[in-house]
Amino acid sequence: MSLRYISARIAQQIDEELMGTVGAFSIDQLMELAGLACAQTLATAYSKHTYARVLVCCGPGNQGGDGLVAARHLGMFGYKPTVYMPKPGSKDIYKRLEKQCVNMDIPILPPSNDVDDLKKALATSDVILDAIFGFSFKPPIRAPFDSVLPLLTDSRLPIVSVDIPSGWDVEKGDSFGVGLKPSVLISLTAPKEGVKDFTGRHFLGGRFVPKLLEQKYQLNLPRYPGVEQIVELESLAKKNAPPM
Amino acid sequence: MSLRYISARIAQQIDEELMGTVGAFSIDQLMELAGLACAQTLATAYSKHTYARVLVCCGPGNQGGDGLVAARHLGMFGYKPTVYMPKPGSKDIYKRLEKQCVNMDIPILPPSNDVDDLKKALATSDVILDAIFGFSFKPPIRAPFDSVLPLLTDSRLPIVSVDIPSGWDVEKGDSFGVGLKPSVLISLTAPKEGVKDFTGRHFLGGRFVPKLLEQKYQLNLPRYPGVEQIVELESLAKKNAPPM
Repeated sequence: MSLRYISARIAQQIDEELMGTVGAFSIDQLMELAGLACAQTLATAYSKHTYARVLVCCGPGNQGGDGLVAARHLGMFGYKPTVYMPKPGSKDIYKRLEKQCVNMDIPILPPSNDVDDLKKALATSDVILDAIFGFSFKPPIRAPFDSVLPLLTDSRLPIVSVDIPSGWDVEKGDSFGVGLKPSVLISLTAPKEGVKDFTGRHFLGGRFVPKLLEQKYQLNLPRYPGVEQIVELESLAKKNAPPM
Repeated sequence: MSLRYISARIAQQIDEELMGTVGAFSIDQLMELAGLACAQTLATAYSKHTYARVLVCCGPGNQGGDGLVAARHLGMFGYKPTVYMPKPGSKDIYKRLEKQCVNMDIPILPPSNDVDDLKKALATSDVILDAIFGFSFKPPIRAPFDSVLPLLTDSRLPIVSVDIPSGWDVEKGDSFGVGLKPSVLISLTAPKEGVKDFTGRHFLGGRFVPKLLEQKYQLNLPRYPGVEQIVELESLAKKNAPPM
């Protein structure tokens, strides 16, 4: 039985069940584990000795929250994260997570409509963590993100995307070619339909799905190794390579 | 500068600051990371191939909450945890964490005043996770714990204790000889004065202390390796050994 790639609707349902009667999780718990998985993925793919300066780009929704958690853990791992929130979230948890970054002395770029700060930050960054849009994203890309995404792409920095590369359709992928081109992807809970053809390094995080949910949605999740919070999926590039 | 062993009062202060303005953490976040560290410690010391059946003993306070989180992660790691709560906690978070274990199909012993269920559970367990008393424990040991602790000791099962072995004075250690005798200890945030002479394997967890707090309390925390949530401290037995 192979790993299932899920639709936006199923992703939304699973999220609700995780925080409802089937999971009974609080959003604080799920975000903490998701953000930790994102930080561990970036650290696995990009060593802090060469890629210390991480620009963590956070959208206004729950995925932005995962990004803020990841920024904090990256700081703990010895990276030098900087947080960029073109449009900060308004939820209470978002503000608390932002405060935790401030308390950890993680610099936060001032939100502003001109993109000069972003350009300067990109010039002094080694890698980008893309936590802008998650599985509830629906095109088109609205301001200010319509000017942010091209700048991230133009920087030519390596990008680690969370769940769905920003700008991609959750189910159809980068069908319009306007999305980011990450080298690494960390899917949360289960990968989304839109990343089926992703050829970079692909990790899965979210080691908190109860068996009951996994079976109900026939997720066929892979085994996580040991005590890890992430598991690397078999590379599609490798899978599709002609036999030697 | 060597690692500082802290008093019960300082531990309490640090906890308050972590959840106050210096940390801005919610208890859900801290317990999730603490419990994960406990589960990873047990898994590091006792392989699931030989020690799959873990009896997770939870007290009524926050440490019991750490135990419930650890039980859930141990289940995820492939262990077969059973939860024992001689006196379940009454806080909302405690009940939610208990519910999460139930949803993960982790068996929970019925709370009861007679200890027959505990005896049966001990006979079919391979290792104990002791999350009964934490840094707010003050002697004497009250019922029902006065009959529970001797049974855990008599079982001769290996014990992994969280923060302070149950029955030990937080500052004076096992001065009355009535506490548990764990082979492994996982200190959270910073080790407590009472475990200075502990000679088993000693781990530290709680990789969330802001630099500001670490400096204020001169904790001199060791470096955690890589992306790990725990670090093993140098064994006191090894440190005190005569030179070869």
